[in-house]
Amino acid sequence: MELITIGDELLLGFTVDTNAAHIARTLAAAGVEIVRRTTVGDEAAGIAAAVREALDRTGAVITTGGLGPTSDDLTKPAIAGIFGRKMRLDEEIAAELERRWKARFPSSGFPATNRSQAEIPEGARVLANRHGSAPGIWLEDESGRWVAMIPGVPREMRGILAEELLPAIRTRAESESVVLSRTLRTTGIAESAIADLLGPHFLGEPGTDLGSLPLAYLPGPMGVDLRVTAKGMPRDRAARLLEEAIVKLRAKVGPYAYGEDDTDLAAVVLQKLRSTNLRLAVAESCTGGMLGERITAVPGSSDVFLGGVIAYRNDIKTAALGVVAEDLRNHGAVSEEVALEMASGVRARLKADVGVSITGIAGPAGGTPEKPVGLVWIAVQAKELKARRFHLIGDRAEIRQRATQAALEMVRRALSNG
Amino acid sequence: MELITIGDELLLGFTVDTNAAHIARTLAAAGVEIVRRTTVGDEAAGIAAAVREALDRTGAVITTGGLGPTSDDLTKPAIAGIFGRKMRLDEEIAAELERRWKARFPSSGFPATNRSQAEIPEGARVLANRHGSAPGIWLEDESGRWVAMIPGVPREMRGILAEELLPAIRTRAESESVVLSRTLRTTGIAESAIADLLGPHFLGEPGTDLGSLPLAYLPGPMGVDLRVTAKGMPRDRAARLLEEAIVKLRAKVGPYAYGEDDTDLAAVVLQKLRSTNLRLAVAESCTGGMLGERITAVPGSSDVFLGGVIAYRNDIKTAALGVVAEDLRNHGAVSEEVALEMASGVRARLKADVGVSITGIAGPAGGTPEKPVGLVWIAVQAKELKARRFHLIGDRAEIRQRATQAALEMVRRALSNG
Repeated sequence: MELITIGDELLLGFTVDTNAAHIARTLAAAGVEIVRRTTVGDEAAGIAAAVREALDRTGAVITTGGLGPTSDDLTKPAIAGIFGRKMRLDEEIAAELERRWKARFPSSGFPATNRSQAEIPEGARVLANRHGSAPGIWLEDESGRWVAMIPGVPREMRGILAEELLPAIRTRAESESVVLSRTLRTTGIAESAIADLLGPHFLGEPGTDLGSLPLAYLPGPMGVDLRVTAKGMPRDRAARLLEEAIVKLRAKVGPYAYGEDDTDLAAVVLQKLRSTNLRLAVAESCTGGMLGERITAVPGSSDVFLGGVIAYRNDIKTAALGVVAEDLRNHGAVSEEVALEMASGVRARLKADVGVSITGIAGPAGGTPEKPVGLVWIAVQAKELKARRFHLIGDRAEIRQRATQAALEMVRRALSNG
Repeated sequence: MELITIGDELLLGFTVDTNAAHIARTLAAAGVEIVRRTTVGDEAAGIAAAVREALDRTGAVITTGGLGPTSDDLTKPAIAGIFGRKMRLDEEIAAELERRWKARFPSSGFPATNRSQAEIPEGARVLANRHGSAPGIWLEDESGRWVAMIPGVPREMRGILAEELLPAIRTRAESESVVLSRTLRTTGIAESAIADLLGPHFLGEPGTDLGSLPLAYLPGPMGVDLRVTAKGMPRDRAARLLEEAIVKLRAKVGPYAYGEDDTDLAAVVLQKLRSTNLRLAVAESCTGGMLGERITAVPGSSDVFLGGVIAYRNDIKTAALGVVAEDLRNHGAVSEEVALEMASGVRARLKADVGVSITGIAGPAGGTPEKPVGLVWIAVQAKELKARRFHLIGDRAEIRQRATQAALEMVRRALSNG
């Protein structure tokens, strides 16, 4: 199967192609492999050429983008042409589009540009869009070669993929070869340190079953993910080998592993808070709210997350958290003393069980030889009150992401030992 | 020119292809157009096929990825084969790699897998890598068709692109056609409403200079970006036409436009605060810190941003912001009254000049018929105190992003009128 993403904004690099990653991961999780991905601009000839080539190679193509109401939408006629189909107005879709429009803009007429979204190729099957206006389209020829077109708006793409496209593909894919993978997520340990821990041929000697599984190191601001992949074998054998590999990896890097696959460390921390019946509050300086944002990105966090204080300026650290002004003067805002006082201050003032604080120098300005950019102090008060110093690498955004992740990991460890 | 990104992790969607966006933008800014982008896995035949096809189409190809020390690196021999070249060990590169290795790991021998990074195709030019070990490679045939291979590690890719590859491409591209674009960023107005405002052929009738510029609508949680592109003309003419187009767009959508190109609304708000000498504080409920995070993502924000309160739970709204408990009971946390009290409360308690608050239902749970998911109240107190109700669409993440952007826009407007 191949994936084609359409849009000048993608080709010019104004938009990062997160749709492509989402579709590939979703299909991979269902055991369906994308063998090539192509991105083309909003130009009919280029779209048609890319789709024709992909059809010739694999006979199964998903496209995203180019289905909106505005005039740069050329995808449907371009692809209909490959199948020798004409476009026709689907009255049912048109009526539904008009109904939605009138519900939203009662006083304004239904524009002709929006009606064009109801045009579909002859003989196409509609993939219902419950999240927006442009429907998806499944087009197939007598020999079973197919193209599925879905919109590029991420919410609509995700909805149609899950509700319509994936079930359709799954039915067809059952007999095809499987690609499965599992990822162990670690944090607080460098890629090279893991490599040293594991050594070469960690999973097994080349040629053995386990040894033939590729082990990928995927470092990023959240830590290092370790991904093992099994290809071209029956699903149950792949699943068994992957389980063996993960058990082996956990035995070595267990203390640094906080979860698998998509697991977010914030969700792990929230779960630990719930199971220990403790409530959390945060005090943030250089991260400016990112820690609270990460935690509240998890639905249902309000049962154990109370809130916090963004103490970006020093006077707020004193007024809202009770940090001693003299400590700020003597040790500076980025210091063990201030981190400890922020954590215990927010815990006491918000009547929480656990307080966590971050204070650091995210850069690019503000560093000194004694306190360089990337220096971050993080403190946690659960049963005990403790602080740790970090030297984080990367630009401002990355330092803040790493600091947030490190704070979550300190809370996780405090709760695991408590 | 075409771009090929190589790696199983990209194809499987475990890594989002930010390299591709960076390269495309960098080249576009230099007036060089990428006409197609392809992603293939770590597999020699697939790499060779994609490169051969791209060469046939455009004669100019950049590849990233597949140059690291690990065993999945097949790019160089696969591409050398297309040009009929053999691989040879470059002794100079090998010596340099060994020197670096010994500096880093004095006690461990230089591994053979790393030495393979010093192998380059016969007749290739080396693109120096000052940021890592794998050098870039430029391979060209007698007819001037070329492939440039650079590593996939983002830092190394960016370095080689800026220092080696871009200068080489620029020299060749001078006679080629230019692609330039400008983007006007709007927020607080729907894509369809802009389309209605502008009507068809807004920039000019088809066939006229302005009318031939594609105008793209790029909707997202931050608002709708309007991008105009000029292709295949001399640079000064392209720049002049784009300026005319932007002036014309601003005349229609001016009140909704907060900036151009990469401009972040948070940076615009900070600049307005600076020029009016006002200091800001935030009170966040459903966004949980995202507004503070957006503001402090801008370097140097501490001169006008004081901090804020993440009042995720109701008792924190009362204790830390002075929201009247009775109002919470009578009107609920997501109400005009509570939003107003949060904004004025954080302004007073943090001694700020401007207070802004967000309270809403981000979902997926917590909605009711009267207060559905997506209902958000935002209040600002600058000279005046006012609140506005929003019905935001999307999933939890998107509702929070839209709420954050709407809050920034309310502050921008409050400061513009003040």
